[in-house]
Amino acid sequence: MTKDNKHKKSIEEKEGIPQIGITNNSLISEIQKKRKSHPEVQNLIDGIFKGDITSLSRSITLVESTHKNHLKKANAIIKACLPKANNSIRIGITGVPGVGKSTFIEVFGKYLTSLGKKVAVLAVDPSSSLTKGSILGDKTRMEALVKDKNAFIRPSASGESLGGVARKTRETIILCEAAGFDTIIIETVGVGQSEIAVSSMVDFFLLLKLAGAGDELQGIKRGIIEMADAIVINKADGDNIKRAKLAKVEFDRALHLYPEKESSWQPKVLTCSALHHEGIEDIWDIISEYKNLTVTNNHWTSKRNHQNKYWLIQTIENQLKENFFNSDKIKKELKLQIKLIEEQKTTPFAAAEHLLSL
Amino acid sequence: MTKDNKHKKSIEEKEGIPQIGITNNSLISEIQKKRKSHPEVQNLIDGIFKGDITSLSRSITLVESTHKNHLKKANAIIKACLPKANNSIRIGITGVPGVGKSTFIEVFGKYLTSLGKKVAVLAVDPSSSLTKGSILGDKTRMEALVKDKNAFIRPSASGESLGGVARKTRETIILCEAAGFDTIIIETVGVGQSEIAVSSMVDFFLLLKLAGAGDELQGIKRGIIEMADAIVINKADGDNIKRAKLAKVEFDRALHLYPEKESSWQPKVLTCSALHHEGIEDIWDIISEYKNLTVTNNHWTSKRNHQNKYWLIQTIENQLKENFFNSDKIKKELKLQIKLIEEQKTTPFAAAEHLLSL
Repeated sequence: MTKDNKHKKSIEEKEGIPQIGITNNSLISEIQKKRKSHPEVQNLIDGIFKGDITSLSRSITLVESTHKNHLKKANAIIKACLPKANNSIRIGITGVPGVGKSTFIEVFGKYLTSLGKKVAVLAVDPSSSLTKGSILGDKTRMEALVKDKNAFIRPSASGESLGGVARKTRETIILCEAAGFDTIIIETVGVGQSEIAVSSMVDFFLLLKLAGAGDELQGIKRGIIEMADAIVINKADGDNIKRAKLAKVEFDRALHLYPEKESSWQPKVLTCSALHHEGIEDIWDIISEYKNLTVTNNHWTSKRNHQNKYWLIQTIENQLKENFFNSDKIKKELKLQIKLIEEQKTTPFAAAEHLLSL
Repeated sequence: MTKDNKHKKSIEEKEGIPQIGITNNSLISEIQKKRKSHPEVQNLIDGIFKGDITSLSRSITLVESTHKNHLKKANAIIKACLPKANNSIRIGITGVPGVGKSTFIEVFGKYLTSLGKKVAVLAVDPSSSLTKGSILGDKTRMEALVKDKNAFIRPSASGESLGGVARKTRETIILCEAAGFDTIIIETVGVGQSEIAVSSMVDFFLLLKLAGAGDELQGIKRGIIEMADAIVINKADGDNIKRAKLAKVEFDRALHLYPEKESSWQPKVLTCSALHHEGIEDIWDIISEYKNLTVTNNHWTSKRNHQNKYWLIQTIENQLKENFFNSDKIKKELKLQIKLIEEQKTTPFAAAEHLLSL
């Protein structure tokens, strides 16, 4: 205590009157110990809260790591960020390659920062572990946005599974929100299960299309049109304008065949030309309109709660399966039982019971 | 041994020459003991092997029971039947209510028995526990087929879950095959997940449609058109013929947009009028053509193996989830964790880890 009292204080002290310590020694030493063992963690948290991009980037790297010690640090950072998270609007953007996603996101992002927003652009692309990031890996495609101090672009986490990539992205959202980003854009490629993953982590899901691309059947088949809160027909410029308008009419008609959404939001169809910066404001207006409606009718919160529950259950179920099927004993016996089924000596159901009893 | 030798044999015995026992006493008493403890089971198995319908029906009732003792007997019967199973062709038939499924199956079934086939008609309809069997519950709708001694009709098993109903149906298939039925028709209602379950237990999947019913989008959305090996447009009679032919052209075109199937089978579109017994032979010809192709290219066997593996894994995964989430401890803690997530005090992933560590 004596030592502490010798420190200069910003408020002048009266001599001769003993100062009461602001805290006790044991608490101080505990805090000091904690800082020593996780010096980095507290610095990173402080940095994130101040909106420091380097701290944010380094923390995301910890989240994306497979190193046990890194993950421990990542979890501490996430926990600290949680109370400051959840205050952004999360927008998912999908579309097949060639639809102009990068140009669209750059122009859309620049428009948002011009409105005073802080925009983080993330990506979900499980294939990136193979292709070293097929989307957003090349930041040169969003030159203007990269240079914008109110924008933060992060390529897709790599990982063997979509589940792993999705988890890392969801945790990255928390960090970005705690760093003050109020608009989170999550890009995904228009193939496979990634769209389902992204749609279950965003508030608003936007499907980018081209007029007459002939992939309407694919969109319907994959249920992607059903997920969309807005369909934006891009490249509506030059000779394309007429076709884009026609496509808009067709999509409008198709959307009306679907039952009303739980949000009571009627999905909108718009045209735009990202290249010529046309129609971008309308898209943001639509998204704002969606937010107003769903915040008012409480769908906004209930959707986020629903999404959290979904990820909770998904994570548990995946882990249960992994724990079971990764045991050497089960692996060996599973092979044997499959052989017995093929030889018509047992049924799939009897074999399942046997394996579960091991 | 002496006792045994006193029994009359159909072949005359030479006196004075001691007979060698066909088996030993301990084996005989073991068999007798077994028969005593499961007198019914052995009788039922014998009955099934003889093609006795009463034995088959009673055995299916055991399969469908929820009584533990019944299920034990059912499992013994299934096990005995396995070596005699697997020799039929299994045909799935789906279509929305009103498409004429009952009439079609009756006429199609009668045609098959006229060819000397033995036809079993089963159903998968999980809703039947509520509606007391919305399909096939009313056998009067298939009067002629019910009276046919080479046909066997069994309404859907009832059950709280599709998984349960599907399992019972798969086991019933084994019993029917062991009883000599060489053609198994499995009907399902054209809604929900039942179609996926049925498609994964049959060799050939047939989708019944009406011309201009306007439910094409539904079929595409639910992936049902993708599953179909044949689309049959029913009620192609009277004023409907032109529309049916037009629908055939449209479906043909739509099917060509899908990638080639693993079976290398190009799905066919046909028209028929079950009411007027028209086009029925063509459908059977198509199914026979499918069998020839897939037996030759080995897809037939690999599909059945694949299906068995699917049911094995499905059963295990469902059971793992049930075991986990049905524990009182987990139920209680799950509620708490969901609350903590909503209060932003934890993440879905941290909560999952916590729950799994209990």
